[in-house]
Amino acid sequence: MAKTGVWLIGAGGALASTAVVGTRAIAHGLARPTGLVTELPELRALPLIGLDQLVFGGWEVNSRGILHQARALAHDHRSLNPGLVAAVEDDLLAVQRRLQPGFALGGGPAAPSRGARAQRSGREPLEKAVARLGDDLQRFREDERLGTVVVVNVASTEPPIALGPEHARLGSFRRLLQEDRRELVTPSMLYAYAALERGCPYVNFTPSPGITPPALREVGETRRVVFYGSDGKTGETLMKTVLAPLFRYRNLEVLSWEGVNLLGGGDGQVLANPRHKQSKLRSKSGVLAPALGYAPHATVAIEYVPSLGNWKTAWDFIHFRGFLDTPMTVQFIWQGCDSVLAAPLVLDLVRLAEFAQRVGEVGPMTHLACFFKDPLGVRISAFQDQVQLLLDYVERHAGRDLTQARGGG
Amino acid sequence: MAKTGVWLIGAGGALASTAVVGTRAIAHGLARPTGLVTELPELRALPLIGLDQLVFGGWEVNSRGILHQARALAHDHRSLNPGLVAAVEDDLLAVQRRLQPGFALGGGPAAPSRGARAQRSGREPLEKAVARLGDDLQRFREDERLGTVVVVNVASTEPPIALGPEHARLGSFRRLLQEDRRELVTPSMLYAYAALERGCPYVNFTPSPGITPPALREVGETRRVVFYGSDGKTGETLMKTVLAPLFRYRNLEVLSWEGVNLLGGGDGQVLANPRHKQSKLRSKSGVLAPALGYAPHATVAIEYVPSLGNWKTAWDFIHFRGFLDTPMTVQFIWQGCDSVLAAPLVLDLVRLAEFAQRVGEVGPMTHLACFFKDPLGVRISAFQDQVQLLLDYVERHAGRDLTQARGGG
Amino acid sequence: MAKTGVWLIGAGGALASTAVVGTRAIAHGLARPTGLVTELPELRALPLIGLDQLVFGGWEVNSRGILHQARALAHDHRSLNPGLVAAVEDDLLAVQRRLQPGFALGGGPAAPSRGARAQRSGREPLEKAVARLGDDLQRFREDERLGTVVVVNVASTEPPIALGPEHARLGSFRRLLQEDRRELVTPSMLYAYAALERGCPYVNFTPSPGITPPALREVGETRRVVFYGSDGKTGETLMKTVLAPLFRYRNLEVLSWEGVNLLGGGDGQVLANPRHKQSKLRSKSGVLAPALGYAPHATVAIEYVPSLGNWKTAWDFIHFRGFLDTPMTVQFIWQGCDSVLAAPLVLDLVRLAEFAQRVGEVGPMTHLACFFKDPLGVRISAFQDQVQLLLDYVERHAGRDLTQARGGG
Amino acid sequence: MAKTGVWLIGAGGALASTAVVGTRAIAHGLARPTGLVTELPELRALPLIGLDQLVFGGWEVNSRGILHQARALAHDHRSLNPGLVAAVEDDLLAVQRRLQPGFALGGGPAAPSRGARAQRSGREPLEKAVARLGDDLQRFREDERLGTVVVVNVASTEPPIALGPEHARLGSFRRLLQEDRRELVTPSMLYAYAALERGCPYVNFTPSPGITPPALREVGETRRVVFYGSDGKTGETLMKTVLAPLFRYRNLEVLSWEGVNLLGGGDGQVLANPRHKQSKLRSKSGVLAPALGYAPHATVAIEYVPSLGNWKTAWDFIHFRGFLDTPMTVQFIWQGCDSVLAAPLVLDLVRLAEFAQRVGEVGPMTHLACFFKDPLGVRISAFQDQVQLLLDYVERHAGRDLTQARGGG
Repeated sequence: MAKTGVWLIGAGGALASTAVVGTRAIAHGLARPTGLVTELPELRALPLIGLDQLVFGGWEVNSRGILHQARALAHDHRSLNPGLVAAVEDDLLAVQRRLQPGFALGGGPAAPSRGARAQRSGREPLEKAVARLGDDLQRFREDERLGTVVVVNVASTEPPIALGPEHARLGSFRRLLQEDRRELVTPSMLYAYAALERGCPYVNFTPSPGITPPALREVGETRRVVFYGSDGKTGETLMKTVLAPLFRYRNLEVLSWEGVNLLGGGDGQVLANPRHKQSKLRSKSGVLAPALGYAPHATVAIEYVPSLGNWKTAWDFIHFRGFLDTPMTVQFIWQGCDSVLAAPLVLDLVRLAEFAQRVGEVGPMTHLACFFKDPLGVRISAFQDQVQLLLDYVERHAGRDLTQARGGG
Repeated sequence: MAKTGVWLIGAGGALASTAVVGTRAIAHGLARPTGLVTELPELRALPLIGLDQLVFGGWEVNSRGILHQARALAHDHRSLNPGLVAAVEDDLLAVQRRLQPGFALGGGPAAPSRGARAQRSGREPLEKAVARLGDDLQRFREDERLGTVVVVNVASTEPPIALGPEHARLGSFRRLLQEDRRELVTPSMLYAYAALERGCPYVNFTPSPGITPPALREVGETRRVVFYGSDGKTGETLMKTVLAPLFRYRNLEVLSWEGVNLLGGGDGQVLANPRHKQSKLRSKSGVLAPALGYAPHATVAIEYVPSLGNWKTAWDFIHFRGFLDTPMTVQFIWQGCDSVLAAPLVLDLVRLAEFAQRVGEVGPMTHLACFFKDPLGVRISAFQDQVQLLLDYVERHAGRDLTQARGGG
Repeated sequence: MAKTGVWLIGAGGALASTAVVGTRAIAHGLARPTGLVTELPELRALPLIGLDQLVFGGWEVNSRGILHQARALAHDHRSLNPGLVAAVEDDLLAVQRRLQPGFALGGGPAAPSRGARAQRSGREPLEKAVARLGDDLQRFREDERLGTVVVVNVASTEPPIALGPEHARLGSFRRLLQEDRRELVTPSMLYAYAALERGCPYVNFTPSPGITPPALREVGETRRVVFYGSDGKTGETLMKTVLAPLFRYRNLEVLSWEGVNLLGGGDGQVLANPRHKQSKLRSKSGVLAPALGYAPHATVAIEYVPSLGNWKTAWDFIHFRGFLDTPMTVQFIWQGCDSVLAAPLVLDLVRLAEFAQRVGEVGPMTHLACFFKDPLGVRISAFQDQVQLLLDYVERHAGRDLTQARGGG
Repeated sequence: MAKTGVWLIGAGGALASTAVVGTRAIAHGLARPTGLVTELPELRALPLIGLDQLVFGGWEVNSRGILHQARALAHDHRSLNPGLVAAVEDDLLAVQRRLQPGFALGGGPAAPSRGARAQRSGREPLEKAVARLGDDLQRFREDERLGTVVVVNVASTEPPIALGPEHARLGSFRRLLQEDRRELVTPSMLYAYAALERGCPYVNFTPSPGITPPALREVGETRRVVFYGSDGKTGETLMKTVLAPLFRYRNLEVLSWEGVNLLGGGDGQVLANPRHKQSKLRSKSGVLAPALGYAPHATVAIEYVPSLGNWKTAWDFIHFRGFLDTPMTVQFIWQGCDSVLAAPLVLDLVRLAEFAQRVGEVGPMTHLACFFKDPLGVRISAFQDQVQLLLDYVERHAGRDLTQARGGG
């Protein structure tokens, strides 16, 4: 079986670096696959691609490079083991050489820093950018002799954008590209379009609009590719969707559920920008009502705390009412490393997307709902119910004769 | 349909008082049935007995009385609304009049205080006690013209006792009674025997040995009665069995799970006694391994903090390892009112036991696992999987023609 | 000695009701003076006025009344004992009869509800209002044959206002009144002016501008009255000023100090309004730098959580750096009842203001800094250093021959 | 001025390693002196010895060595920066070469591992051991041409021992040594005796009996040496003594103060032993009553959680009563690195002990109370009052002509 390509949007970021360091460390036998859902005994029945069969590349808008980032994570943020980073230095440099300039509309806190490798995208017409990005994917596949190339968006969160009729159908969306309507096409949409159009499975790990426009899903279905998103569920929201059923099935009424997220790092900095934060808040706040059956008073606050680096702390305060309307509370404090929580999920999604594409599936991979805060086309938000969707999928495919499977995208 | 009797062991305690006040308040339209699992839409398909059809009585070893207890809960512990207690005063007095002296072996922190109503049980032979207790149940049923009488143990936790061959078979257990072997028969066993022997469904809401001896289950099966236990799952352990699947299905390795329970009230006082605490710790500590698939370092501490009264606070510290062995933590703080959390579950169990008995079931009600810390004969400890057992049960019975149902025990 | 009047601005609010219920309950021997700083052994040397010598009255802009409020606190918010409220019902009604319509400029969340007793203040000219309010104080003193009348502002927080040259001198401020410049004179300024002008000690327990304008302090000094503020220090900020010295004197560098305040009740509702919240945030955020010697990254968030009623929960996350720049954290969670925390301090301030006035002091009572978040004219913010100011004051007055004391304002 | 020797008892432990790494890193300009009280501006007036003038040596009962320990702290426990450890490797090896075998009575969790360097102390007579240990100090001073040698006990906690008349006077204590009464003389006493007898200032940073016997203080006074202890105040207890005054000076009644300490590492392991834990609990539990003026219900729990390594987490739950007996709570969570919190204090104590000895002081250094949980001869436990003792001391010595100072012990 050919190797699988993993093309990361935001390849110079903390999450991308952690995913690469971890994959290579595991491949070299230097680390265990803790945190990978695809390594659970329950998923053993699926013939997933090995972690050592993944080849990384990607787009970046910033010139510091993936090795530099990995070292910073090890030395400044205590979020990677310095020994591991040193051990996979060559692997990181190999990935570094495959990186290509990303596309950025300019402005915003995640815009390329001065001297960055981005193609002064501000001036590159959309249609030309799509072609360039698509060619990058094509070249990656050919150069590395890859089967499927899975594209994963792990870039900084974009501000939300109102979807209009132009985003509804593929024809009208293409006209946006032709007419260079930059105010209606965000980079994440452009990346998604370029990926799907070239037959690459696409996973939107961020809350950016990415895969949201119906027009883009139409590309996926037309080109017979799988895709999914949005916004990896790694911390506070994960806890919420795990805890909510307690209240649901004990018939305890949640009066208020207040969540506060303190985070530093690049992610925190971007989210300190109110417009960008908006996207995140949207995907975070929608999970309670489906899980509880009603919408309690709930706020989600995100504060940028630079000293936390790549670590985040979330405090949730849940005020609920029990028998005879007695008020009681539960609080939780989640302290985790953002990129370390997310990286194994990215690898899981790559493996599961490659498999789905290999066995001929098309369209949204709803069985992956448990990985996302805002899973496309799935109304279930309780974590364990979402896990069940995945386990059911495994069961359906467990006995399948995979020799009939078509080659990857 | 005849009314259903609820015979409480420990009828003068905080839990019993809360259950009675709540049931009557709901029956009078003064309170909503928040916290009752049996009021969930998912259970509507079961024709359960109405809360206003429950008649309460019970045994107590302490003379203060249920009205006194309810007032103390309202005024001293802020755990019942004083207005509600005042509104159901007559109902409480009616229950008070039905209370009968319990059985206590003497010694221990929960022993009857001086001048208490207990039948100087220390001298009452076991066999005579069984007959007396059985007669109490009989009289209650007749006097109140009840269908089923469900017996629920909500008394203070007993110390654990090693089960031997004498507890294995009904014959040998009966010999223990005949020979008055008081060191091998705890009050909770005696109560369970008396109840089952008279055909009354029996629910062991405490961690006391109660229903544990196989000999007692044999009585249940012989007399064709349903029964279940042990130890109602209301707080910290509930949280554990809700949270554990997060780690399980994200493949995050729990390194340590340390739990601290601060509680006051009568329960805290009894559990401050190391031997009694042992029973509680047993039922609390067994839940992680089945849910996680391995046993992490885990301690469960219980501290008696008198000032907390009927309230409890639990702090759990969970140290886990994610991708690349990165250590992270989650902590939770649960602040609840013990009796208020437990009371609706007692009512749920009464209704569900009455139903099971009515439709002709016999033996352990494993579909009620989600209510218990240590569910008899069920290895599943994850909360949502236990809930599924109940939902499946409801589905099986939803379409059932209940006109064929036999009358209660 | 004549009795002392306590004239409350916002007399129908939760804090005012709690202060009255508590004072009368203590006077009747129904409660202990827990929470009163003036009952500490260290303050015994000061011949303070007895709690049973306080007579309450005040202004209100809302018609529900103080008894109604006290009952709501007892029954809806679990923040007053229902038995106590019932026991002092007559006292509450007596206070209720002394209440007079307040002054409100209209608009804002704390504005009088329809049908309220406020003198349609929107149309009442400022100068006329001052005269009316002053007459209220005069009449109260005469009717009740009081010595001093201490005026305490416990009304809802006003939005901040930029002080200009008009607020700098008494002359120009008086012109604002004459010219009815309502955009430059907030109600709290008007109340302060009316009080001081009539020789009544004035305490600003809220973060409203109240006593801030230099012109108002000039009135105080001219009329030889004592005054102080602003913003009673009862919870999160108190904790901050207690904890900060730990970091200061262990030479641990605070990197970030993030505070989140969840509060319901009328206070929460008013503070949910961004303009009003601004005043609160100002007084809360200034305490760290003086105590630490530098300003760490620090945010203070206030969220309105209606279900909390009169209770508040604060979570503070402190990220600090120790030896060799090792990052560590402390977090605290404060759960208290707002009005219950504040009420005894109001009584302390009344007693200490009456004493200061009695012994002939004039101007800002800087020895009361420990009671306030933003103590007028005191740069010390560490709690214990502020306490020392009070203890030093007590020492200075302990041996004083008080027969020379002049009569109160 | 001659250099100062720092002779560590338990020189191979985490705390000792951290102190040495830190001192050398600061001396090399690789780290800032964060966490050192002696670097506060308030202490600048004291002419303390420079950190680069400290020479380290010590006793150990375990053979792994200080470099091995430092690397483990960096790589396994995330409690030292790997780069710093690498940078001071030579310094660590130099210290390693100066280490001498310690004295251990055998048994107990902190006893030397097999093959360790300890002088099979089990058989070494006490009197001979004293001479050997004293000679070690003498040789260290001569070899390194040191002024004072300050001996600091940073070894594992010993179990408590009942002090009898034999410990009361120097004569009788010497007889214990002569008669080899090993059951009455713990290693920490032997070390203290050896140090003081040779004129070396002695600091007991652990809760071990060390300096407690009056006989040992008599040696100190006779030999005109300074000494102090016991048990460095670094975390939960520090927080307690900082927070207690809040309740004291707001007249809030603490009902219960429950503390839970989770710790791993060698310290946790030793304290998991109930007898050893006893010493720790004693020094921790005594601080509330002096600070509050009464003893609330208070438990202090210590749990050994191996996965925490050198980190500790403490959770304290404080239940208090405010106005009108309203119950409220504060909780705090302290997450710190044990050795990193303690190391700078050890350096502070060395510098301040050297200074005190230099200026001719003798006996217990009560001005250092703020560094200890159980400060010898000081009843004040509130942190800020203890800090004041130090600041007063600085003020007394600030103007002193130090040319008169005698040479160090």
